[in-house]
Amino acid sequence: MARKIIIDTDPGKDDAVAILLALGSPGELDVLSLVAVAGNVPLARTEGNARRLLELGGRPDIPVYSGCARPLVRPVVTAEHVHGETGLVGLVLPEPRAAAQALHGVDHLIEALRDAAPGEVTLCLLGPATNLAMALVKAPEIVRGIAEVVWMAGARSEGGNVTPASEYNVHADPEAAAVLLESGLKLTLLPLDLTHQLRMTAGRLERLRRIGTAAARAVATLFSAADGMPAFEREEEGAPLHDPCVIAFLLRPTLFAGRFVNVVVETASPLTAGMTVVDWFGTTDRPANANWLNEVADREGFFDLLFERLARLP
Amino acid sequence: MARKIIIDTDPGKDDAVAILLALGSPGELDVLSLVAVAGNVPLARTEGNARRLLELGGRPDIPVYSGCARPLVRPVVTAEHVHGETGLVGLVLPEPRAAAQALHGVDHLIEALRDAAPGEVTLCLLGPATNLAMALVKAPEIVRGIAEVVWMAGARSEGGNVTPASEYNVHADPEAAAVLLESGLKLTLLPLDLTHQLRMTAGRLERLRRIGTAAARAVATLFSAADGMPAFEREEEGAPLHDPCVIAFLLRPTLFAGRFVNVVVETASPLTAGMTVVDWFGTTDRPANANWLNEVADREGFFDLLFERLARLP
Amino acid sequence: MARKIIIDTDPGKDDAVAILLALGSPGELDVLSLVAVAGNVPLARTEGNARRLLELGGRPDIPVYSGCARPLVRPVVTAEHVHGETGLVGLVLPEPRAAAQALHGVDHLIEALRDAAPGEVTLCLLGPATNLAMALVKAPEIVRGIAEVVWMAGARSEGGNVTPASEYNVHADPEAAAVLLESGLKLTLLPLDLTHQLRMTAGRLERLRRIGTAAARAVATLFSAADGMPAFEREEEGAPLHDPCVIAFLLRPTLFAGRFVNVVVETASPLTAGMTVVDWFGTTDRPANANWLNEVADREGFFDLLFERLARLP
Amino acid sequence: MARKIIIDTDPGKDDAVAILLALGSPGELDVLSLVAVAGNVPLARTEGNARRLLELGGRPDIPVYSGCARPLVRPVVTAEHVHGETGLVGLVLPEPRAAAQALHGVDHLIEALRDAAPGEVTLCLLGPATNLAMALVKAPEIVRGIAEVVWMAGARSEGGNVTPASEYNVHADPEAAAVLLESGLKLTLLPLDLTHQLRMTAGRLERLRRIGTAAARAVATLFSAADGMPAFEREEEGAPLHDPCVIAFLLRPTLFAGRFVNVVVETASPLTAGMTVVDWFGTTDRPANANWLNEVADREGFFDLLFERLARLP
Repeated sequence: MARKIIIDTDPGKDDAVAILLALGSPGELDVLSLVAVAGNVPLARTEGNARRLLELGGRPDIPVYSGCARPLVRPVVTAEHVHGETGLVGLVLPEPRAAAQALHGVDHLIEALRDAAPGEVTLCLLGPATNLAMALVKAPEIVRGIAEVVWMAGARSEGGNVTPASEYNVHADPEAAAVLLESGLKLTLLPLDLTHQLRMTAGRLERLRRIGTAAARAVATLFSAADGMPAFEREEEGAPLHDPCVIAFLLRPTLFAGRFVNVVVETASPLTAGMTVVDWFGTTDRPANANWLNEVADREGFFDLLFERLARLP
Repeated sequence: MARKIIIDTDPGKDDAVAILLALGSPGELDVLSLVAVAGNVPLARTEGNARRLLELGGRPDIPVYSGCARPLVRPVVTAEHVHGETGLVGLVLPEPRAAAQALHGVDHLIEALRDAAPGEVTLCLLGPATNLAMALVKAPEIVRGIAEVVWMAGARSEGGNVTPASEYNVHADPEAAAVLLESGLKLTLLPLDLTHQLRMTAGRLERLRRIGTAAARAVATLFSAADGMPAFEREEEGAPLHDPCVIAFLLRPTLFAGRFVNVVVETASPLTAGMTVVDWFGTTDRPANANWLNEVADREGFFDLLFERLARLP
Repeated sequence: MARKIIIDTDPGKDDAVAILLALGSPGELDVLSLVAVAGNVPLARTEGNARRLLELGGRPDIPVYSGCARPLVRPVVTAEHVHGETGLVGLVLPEPRAAAQALHGVDHLIEALRDAAPGEVTLCLLGPATNLAMALVKAPEIVRGIAEVVWMAGARSEGGNVTPASEYNVHADPEAAAVLLESGLKLTLLPLDLTHQLRMTAGRLERLRRIGTAAARAVATLFSAADGMPAFEREEEGAPLHDPCVIAFLLRPTLFAGRFVNVVVETASPLTAGMTVVDWFGTTDRPANANWLNEVADREGFFDLLFERLARLP
Repeated sequence: MARKIIIDTDPGKDDAVAILLALGSPGELDVLSLVAVAGNVPLARTEGNARRLLELGGRPDIPVYSGCARPLVRPVVTAEHVHGETGLVGLVLPEPRAAAQALHGVDHLIEALRDAAPGEVTLCLLGPATNLAMALVKAPEIVRGIAEVVWMAGARSEGGNVTPASEYNVHADPEAAAVLLESGLKLTLLPLDLTHQLRMTAGRLERLRRIGTAAARAVATLFSAADGMPAFEREEEGAPLHDPCVIAFLLRPTLFAGRFVNVVVETASPLTAGMTVVDWFGTTDRPANANWLNEVADREGFFDLLFERLARLP
């Protein structure tokens, strides 16, 4: 039976790939809904993009909910320099026919999780953790319905991509990250340490274009237009595929490896705010609270999986 | 026409007095609802107490909503040593007949403020600012319906009552306070600097007992049993009447005086977390964002008002 | 027998008054030396001013040492807007004949305290605590020679005079303050809460001018020229006499009153850095480490003492 | 002509190797003096160890000065679990004949650097930066005599070895590190990222034992006794050779590679205090201030150099 997931997302070009990867895997993943959050681009964009991507993936029936337009405490930080003004740089998708749901994304999370059997729903977080943190503060009892949370977030060895210490999804709402890390929920983090090992090269772009589906073409467009560059010859030059790791982990957990460790988010210091402080060597007595995946066990396996699933879509 | 108010509260013995003061002033104040928040005692207590107090005040028709059971980011901090295990130390009130509303307190705030005419509703905050902060994060557009926010919160000259630097309502949820202080809403703060000037003395207790209404007797019970002490002879020995200042300010703004200044809440340092940093002398270039009331212009006027209104209740 | 004191100072107009007050009290105070520190104005100024003031006070024989030109960790913060470019705004004093000592001020402290009998020397701090902190880090054994430290520093109820939270002498070197507060030394603090109660009014200036000594005239000049104002009619309008409180406390401890409490300096947060967090109500379990004087028991007694001693000088 | 160096150190077993490596390189390095600092073990130990190691290396004529027994602001943190109670775990060296110098280590730094020609002296820091920071605060003019500072300190990708975020030499005195990083001095940092790539394996221990000099035997003893383990077969299991990297860098700069970047030390947050925040990707506009060496260009070259020089010693 397919695993029930809700995807909380701020598309975002790598969010797009993650969503398509999930839609291409109906045998394993039952996508209950998408919830949009402000992040890479403002909420109005991420919500619209979520519906566009569902249409592209042939699943306009999946409902999309608008969540929070701002972080818990801090001002909004977006990343248009990476994702373009629209969030889906270079990709033009038609106006979606399906409307957004009226229910607030936070309330959708609460209702879906309250109605679920214990541990029935897996949450996939592809952006800042604002919506889930809000739901946990508003209705702490929802933890019961959650199987686990899988989040693209954080950085240790790699250093941050917004500041020297902080990765975007945590940096954009450190307090939400703190709520999640202290929630006691089963939690898997896929940090930059991992995602920077999976990049779109010229060869992979070429392979993608040969697939022939609209979904594959869209991904190729996002990653070639992204930087206006003709091609990435070398492994380390390509754009990283951050968010698809979350879905790939659900489909094939053995693609990645890591350690169950304590992770605390820095919220106090301006210099290091948003940093995920990972007790990798057990130098503290803080109990482990997250599965920190930093190794790609099978890089080609990841791309094979991704391309295979994109080939199944319209 | 009476001013429309919503009272967000964590009763709490001084919350009780504030609520009764509002109920005793129907000509001036139209209490739309009470919203409970975790604070002095846990949420289940504050919500039940809110309904009990409405019954005591003869207004079981006013709806009560349950808000958040925990702060935005930090763990719950209660204050049973001040308010007793039940929150209404020494006072036994019957089970209320009216049930709590099903709608979450945060959503009630959002709905009531969205439906309101621009600037129609005044919010009275008697506890941590969690519910309003949550509503502002979830639905930023609600600012439109708010006339102003009046909050018992903070301390400057007096120092804190939880730590040397922080007053309880801010200390219990500093991040919520930060959201409110940065919201741009019209905001009046009634800090310990003010509330410590208004105390229940033996003489005032005696006066209260002679009033003869159940409401007045209840207040007398709360403030005599509070510390198990027979009487407070000296002005500075009595228990302060923090929260009633919020309602008194709405009824008679000239009772108090202060300055329109910049207030920032400390959220970074463990030593000073929850402190309201007030730019009293204008040594920074931070713009003023709050009306900070630190002077009692008419102390006896305050008590005359309070006792007069308690006399009007059942 | 006169009490042996070393004055560590950054003159500074109120430092000047403090130094003259000490020089005018040879029966009670034996001024071993002055040590200059960067503070109100840069070190070269404060050192020169120290020698000029000794000459003015008829004691060019007292040696002056140059201490640190910068704080322990942070950049230098001066206060020329209060003390003028020279530090002795409006007052022109001749070049001093005595040269500064070659020995560094920190080393003078160390040598003097090492050579002293146990508890023989009292340290009077009128500026940032840099020199003493450096001496304590470099030679921790010097605590043995110290009777006590009396420091004009900090603020609680008054709020700060540099930022809303911090008083200048602590703000200028919070880490030095931290070293001193954690040293275990007997420590008396005279904060703004106290010093703001002692101000130079028009009446006092007039009285000062009638004294007739050069020292008294110099003080009058400093405090009349200071703000370019003709006179301060009202008590609260005059410039405060911060630093003289340190010397007055040594001469007549009963002029002031306060409480023995725990004081910690904030060094972490940018918002509150340099704040003295005073556990006035004992809400923490941190042990008392400083005598915090916040009350003037005899205001006229203070001015009588000051004027009497200025009259004894040349 | 040999380069003039002063070694500031807290021996410490890897300090010992660094000192011996320097003594074995008289053609390139002219060791003017050793300055001891509290660190791995208390000051009395590090100072005595410094003299013992000079005797072992046949250079009892090099003067040893005692510096600071405590950090600038924080309490002392030692590391006996790594270096043993004596600091030279397992190694018994005779009482040194030469006495320590009477002059304080901080003052020796100041005098030596003041007397030096511009840029004449290179400072090698093997422990916390306390002594140099104190010298810079006490006598800022000494920067003139300094060619450069080479410090074993910090961590980026590797994470810390005391807390998840901080390496020992920075963690033990973060404020001293801040003073140094903001000094404008030419600065090279050799962090854990580098030093963890150079480890004492069983094979290298065996090679060391065959050298036959007392110095080589001592190093073998320190690194075999260290953990009471028979041998380290695998590269990643051996104890790292942190401090010798400083001397190796002076002898053969091409052994290592890195980047000239901005480094700021965290001093505010308890969670990340002592972390070196390295702007590796230039995500900030903070100017570069340190040469951060994170790559070993020639691992065997390092060990060849070390063993060759240990063979030259007595």
